[in-house]
Order: sequence, then C-alpha cells, then structure tokens
Amino acid sequence: MRIALLIEYDGTNYYGFQKQKIHQSKTIQYHIDQSIKIIANHTIKSSCGGRTDTGVHAFNQVVHFDTKSKRKDFNWVKGINTYLPNDIFVKKIFHVNDDFHARFSALSRTYRYVIYNSKIYSPLYSKYTLHCEDELDIDAIKKSFVHLIGEKNFSSFRSSGCVSVSPKKLIKSIQIKKHNNLIFIDVTANSFLYHMVRNMVGFFIDIGKGKIDLKDVKDLIESRDRKKLSKTVPPFGLYLTKITYPSKYDIFQNERFNFLS
Amino acid sequence: MRIALLIEYDGTNYYGFQKQKIHQSKTIQYHIDQSIKIIANHTIKSSCGGRTDTGVHAFNQVVHFDTKSKRKDFNWVKGINTYLPNDIFVKKIFHVNDDFHARFSALSRTYRYVIYNSKIYSPLYSKYTLHCEDELDIDAIKKSFVHLIGEKNFSSFRSSGCVSVSPKKLIKSIQIKKHNNLIFIDVTANSFLYHMVRNMVGFFIDIGKGKIDLKDVKDLIESRDRKKLSKTVPPFGLYLTKITYPSKYDIFQNERFNFLS
Repeated sequence: MRIALLIEYDGTNYYGFQKQKIHQSKTIQYHIDQSIKIIANHTIKSSCGGRTDTGVHAFNQVVHFDTKSKRKDFNWVKGINTYLPNDIFVKKIFHVNDDFHARFSALSRTYRYVIYNSKIYSPLYSKYTLHCEDELDIDAIKKSFVHLIGEKNFSSFRSSGCVSVSPKKLIKSIQIKKHNNLIFIDVTANSFLYHMVRNMVGFFIDIGKGKIDLKDVKDLIESRDRKKLSKTVPPFGLYLTKITYPSKYDIFQNERFNFLS
Repeated sequence: MRIALLIEYDGTNYYGFQKQKIHQSKTIQYHIDQSIKIIANHTIKSSCGGRTDTGVHAFNQVVHFDTKSKRKDFNWVKGINTYLPNDIFVKKIFHVNDDFHARFSALSRTYRYVIYNSKIYSPLYSKYTLHCEDELDIDAIKKSFVHLIGEKNFSSFRSSGCVSVSPKKLIKSIQIKKHNNLIFIDVTANSFLYHMVRNMVGFFIDIGKGKIDLKDVKDLIESRDRKKLSKTVPPFGLYLTKITYPSKYDIFQNERFNFLS
C-alpha cells in the first residue's frame, strides 16, 4: 500500500529535506521517517517530490512511503503530527497506486522567492524574505523572462555540486508581482538544477538594479558560464509552493499559499 | 536636544519593551538605551509611545531621549543600528521640540492582531499569527464593533495587574478584513488597558465561532466582569503598527505595514 502526504515546513532550523549522515537529526526527512515509523510500526523510507536545501521552506511538499499497516486516515495524520516538531506538519493524506512516485510522477514544481524591496531593513521580514535596498525595475525583470521560458540549457544557473544528469530543463512559467514593498517571483519548471531558482533570482535582482542590461541577458544565459552570472541569493526567502501530478493521482493542494502576499 | 526614533522589532525573543530588574538584557528598551549610550557617549533613558508586552512585535514604535551630543542624522541611525541586535532596528530619526513626549504627546495607538483561520495548522504562519481552526463569521464580529467604539469603561477587557488609573478608554476605530486564510484586526484607541487588545480579540473569536451570541455582546461588555469574558489570546499575533501625534511634530510613518496582508 502506497501512501502520499502533503507536508508544510519552516526550513529555518534544518539542513534541508534529505537525510544525510552528518546532521541526520537536523533534516526534514529524518523527522518524517521517524514519525511515520512509530505510527506504521515498522521502518519506512520516504521519497519527496522536490528536494529543498538547507534553510529552504515548503508550503506544499509531497512525500510517499509504502506500508502494510492499516490505520484510519485521521490516525495516520494525527499520529504522525504528534511526533513531528512544531515546524513540520502533515496537512493531507492520499492513497495512491503503486505506480505513483512523489519524485518521478511529478510534472512540475513551483518555487516562490520573496524579496523585501525597501530602503529600510525590516526585522519583522528579515527571517523569511531577502532584503533589497535598491528599488528594482519590475518591468525590466519581466522582459528577461522570454529568454528563459521553454526547454533550454540552464548551465548559467547551475551551481557546482549539481548531480543532475543534464543541464537541460523546461521552464513552464515565471511570474513576478509586487505588493507594497514585497516582490514575489514564482518559477515553474519540470525540475530544477542545484540552486537554479536562487541563481536566477540573483540574476533578476541585477537586472532590476540595472547592473545587467537587457540587451546582454540572452548572451549571458547562453554563455553557460556560471562565473559570468550573478551571485546566489540566500535560502530563507525560498518556498516550494506546489508540485503538480497527473490528475489521475488526485493529489490536490487547495490551500492557498498567501504568506506575505 | 530631544530626539525621537521610529523603531521596528520582532518581539519573539524579548520580555517586552520596558526595562525591568529581572531579564533586563532581554528587553527591547535595554538594547535601545545601551546602543544610544554608545553613540551619544553618555547614559540615556528612552521613553516609548506604546509599551509592548512579552512576545509582542512593533512595526512602528516611537521612542524619545535627550542629549547634548551632536551627530549627523545618518550617524545616529547607522551607529545605533550597529549595536542593536538584528531583531530591533531604527528606521527613522526626528528632531523634536522639548515639549514632545513619545508617550504623553501621542493621540492614538493602533495595534494589529493576525489570525490564521484554517482547519489545518501551518508551521510557516505559526510563529507570527494565531491559528484558529473554526471558520470565523467576520460579519458577526463586525456587528459587535458598534458596542465598543467610543469612550467607554473597558473593565471587561482589563487583565489583572493593570496599572492604568482609569478603565475608561476611547476606541476610535476597529477594522477587520480577511485575505485568503488570514484575518487582520486593527484597533485604534487613545490608549489601552493591560492586555486590552488581546482580551478583545479573544472575545471576537468567540463571537466569530458563535460561542457568544450577538444579543449578549452589549451586556457582556457592560458587565465590567473580566471573568465572564473570553480568554486572552497569545502575544505572538500582536503588532503595534502606528502611533499618531499632532501634525506639528511631523512624526511620519510612511512605510506601509503589509506583513501578511
């Protein structure tokens, strides 16, 4: 029996989703697997739909695991949440066919990056958004999107240490909107290279500041030379907001992520 | 020479604004006074416009202090911020007449309380909003405001330990709005009794849940019996958002507080 869970977490205090040898107990997956184990009464190993790095948050992460244990849905959710720390929470449970895989069945992932665009630093925003003093030119940033959307080689936005077989990814959409001093950038792709969103946001910020001229955008992207591009922005402004699956799996995420928007 | 400062802070890690004998170094005022002292080169004692309790935040707190030291505005602000922890920040400086007093010159204070109204708990909202599972009836809550606005005896919302001379306060406005799962309640009054906003929000939540019938609202308020009223909501959802002064002092707060809205 395969079960999928929709999970939200504040990544501030964790070394990312994936379990690892060092800092094992400071990963999201460690806590999820340990809590499921207690309720299932046997060891399990979860797989996730979108790996998140150290300090990155998820509003809608999807994981799956296999079990023969029979519990009521309410008892799975309530039970697992009882053992999870306060900054990780199971929001929904789905019974899925054995061909469902949280990672390999996913059609796309959407990440949101939040920038606090104000001359003045804000202690109340600082832990969950990136502060940017210079006023960013949203229209200029928007004009760069046309050079990024589609299936392309994204080596320019690939950090070293990336384990992806190919640098080709398919960006399905990029959106930017401003609400008072907050800027939200949403990027949807089939999947992402290591630090790809954070490297792209650094690039957008440089365009918005006028440090990169629009006429150079295409060449920079096509240079495939990470060293020529902008620096990686920090993880605390990044949120995994949605993972899309074929409709037959019925993994719905109807809670709207309106954090700061 | 009297100087006023506009200050923002995340109150999570502090025992409120006011310096006290125990936990001295864990108060906002302690850090402000210590940092100003270094820049002014003499001891100062700040006064604030709106005292905040343990765990309560401020988007726009106003303090004043006296000094004979001459510094450029930039050096006051930059200097003081250098010595403040990351969760407290001076946003603006004002040179005010000696008759200005952060507390006694204030015409009104506005506090915002933020509720996350969703069946499902959210780790990403939990540190800065109050989670309320039951869907609240915003219209019912709105209908209770008419019984609260104006100059009244607010003993029903006064916690024990209140040092206010009189339980009479003048509520100038109450507003409530919902944005997706978030509910924002803004209360403006000349001043407040101890825990008055947090006690009122508890009352609003009980009205919104239908636990208190609208026809009983007036009697409950006029009972002046705290024990008959609802429980105090926690501090982490409360923000001091604005202090209004006579226009002659020119203490402007043009940064919009759009946290979570």
